[in-house]
Amino acid sequence: MNNQIRLGHGSGGKLMHDLIHDMFFKHFSNTMLTKEADSAILKTTGKSMAFTTDSFVVHPLFFPGGDIGKLSICGTLNDLAVCGAIPQYISVGFILEEGFSLKELEKIVISMAREAQKAGANIVTGDTKVVRKGQADKLFINTSGIGTIPDYAEHFSAGKNIQQGDVVIINGSLGDHAIAVLSAREDLSFQSTLKSDCASLTHMIHQLLKSDFDIKFIRDLTRGGLATCLNEIAQTQAIDIEIQEEHIPVKEPVEGICETLGFDPLYLANEGKIAIIVSAKDADKVIESLRKDTLGRESAIIGQVKKGNHGIVTAESVIGGKRMLQMRSGEQLPRIC
Amino acid sequence: MNNQIRLGHGSGGKLMHDLIHDMFFKHFSNTMLTKEADSAILKTTGKSMAFTTDSFVVHPLFFPGGDIGKLSICGTLNDLAVCGAIPQYISVGFILEEGFSLKELEKIVISMAREAQKAGANIVTGDTKVVRKGQADKLFINTSGIGTIPDYAEHFSAGKNIQQGDVVIINGSLGDHAIAVLSAREDLSFQSTLKSDCASLTHMIHQLLKSDFDIKFIRDLTRGGLATCLNEIAQTQAIDIEIQEEHIPVKEPVEGICETLGFDPLYLANEGKIAIIVSAKDADKVIESLRKDTLGRESAIIGQVKKGNHGIVTAESVIGGKRMLQMRSGEQLPRIC
Repeated sequence: MNNQIRLGHGSGGKLMHDLIHDMFFKHFSNTMLTKEADSAILKTTGKSMAFTTDSFVVHPLFFPGGDIGKLSICGTLNDLAVCGAIPQYISVGFILEEGFSLKELEKIVISMAREAQKAGANIVTGDTKVVRKGQADKLFINTSGIGTIPDYAEHFSAGKNIQQGDVVIINGSLGDHAIAVLSAREDLSFQSTLKSDCASLTHMIHQLLKSDFDIKFIRDLTRGGLATCLNEIAQTQAIDIEIQEEHIPVKEPVEGICETLGFDPLYLANEGKIAIIVSAKDADKVIESLRKDTLGRESAIIGQVKKGNHGIVTAESVIGGKRMLQMRSGEQLPRIC
Repeated sequence: MNNQIRLGHGSGGKLMHDLIHDMFFKHFSNTMLTKEADSAILKTTGKSMAFTTDSFVVHPLFFPGGDIGKLSICGTLNDLAVCGAIPQYISVGFILEEGFSLKELEKIVISMAREAQKAGANIVTGDTKVVRKGQADKLFINTSGIGTIPDYAEHFSAGKNIQQGDVVIINGSLGDHAIAVLSAREDLSFQSTLKSDCASLTHMIHQLLKSDFDIKFIRDLTRGGLATCLNEIAQTQAIDIEIQEEHIPVKEPVEGICETLGFDPLYLANEGKIAIIVSAKDADKVIESLRKDTLGRESAIIGQVKKGNHGIVTAESVIGGKRMLQMRSGEQLPRIC
């Protein structure tokens, strides 16, 4: 009983106070958080800042290559980084189901602390709510993040000035996260070999932005995958994009499960992958920079911006056929993040 | 079926895209939000900013005097204001249960938009997740907020320099929110007369801070109520506080239900009430300023900082007896915010 979340842990009383001190402060410790004010007070420099939010409901909470805690920090760090910001401050909101294991919660909290620390960001404010058994599925996490935009990224504005001939690059194989989560959910036999790609890309992205490459767009390939991301940018900027499937890395277990279940890896969620659109002249240099990072070893040029302004994305298959990649109505796999 | 949330609304695909455009952009519209980037880009001035987060799980979603939408914005606005910040930017994270009514969602979204607009804050970034039926209770909302601290509040630091003789003020009756939510939950007959006090106190608080009153502490009296709030500040600052129950406004229906169910109004949650600790010399002027605001009409001096450094809070009853107000283990009513 004492190892489980109770309604009182969300009450504002002594149980909550103890949870905050003995669990959250212990692992997230920093002077801004432990002031226990209603808000964290941040110094600013007059530079622009980025602000983002994400809720995480992944099922199951633990999967090969990560857990909901790691995911909840990396997801928000990546949303800041793709906008050119250096992640600094993170807020955490927990919604806990009565009866949830305090031991599992601590594992998750440790994952969060580790990822935030690796990226040099601090968890500075938080909130905890508890609902009765059956009113939530174990644990949901919201993280919001704030980062400062350094001078070298000040004029990096996602998607502007994309032109015919620009190339599309991704930093590695598609679908690892979605299939790793599915494998943990369904207890599929290949789970020992496949891991989620869940990772913070802050360092890799800022290495690119610091260089003088003519980078026009970066976005992380989460829900909806590569196909949805390219559709969004194609439609918003009124450009046409073509990708070559033969150049897109897909790991064998992912390809296998996609064939069996009829999934398309181009639409599968990733948590450590980005698409980059860059001027053709700098494409090779971008690939070189990405491959220096362990998270970009398999980076590849996978497509180009074509002539046309219809907001259309097409994929050329290995045998040369072409198909339109449309934005789909729903998702192949719910609750993968 | 088309009037309900489906799993696809959280998928990253077309259904989600439509929900974002036809519901969230429609009501929250502002240029930062509709850029649809992974983060909102904020200008800063070099002044300090406050950053806060809160999740909302109130049950039921609609109650006399408000709904979860109004609550989710006011709660975060108030957390910023009590730290001296002027609320500017808000993020919103929805966790929706499959099957939840789109019509009810829109009502909630309209409430959120209205409260943000009244306070001059913009909802600039957001996220939507959907879980299967039975995996969440209809709708949970997280809001995070950022506000800038103006020059006049720069040196306002919660709780420092509190001295013997300082007085404790509240801006009106206690327990209205908790009992209004309870009444809606249990369909109690007095619900027609009692309303939640849920409100944004931004304006009222900044009127105080702009004046040259010697205000030492402000906090909103949410979970755990007045007693918990005073215990926190008494313990953190090592001071002793005494309050007089006869001076504490409690509405008749709240008093009635407290007597029947054995609740103590001093521990009940409020969503439009603050405690203020101020130098005795300025107490009357603070009361005068508060009463000019419709949200402070019933403001009253309810206690004093006594000699002693034990972190103890005592209450003197109407007939003169004294009792210690300890921090309780749990909450009388779960899910009131």
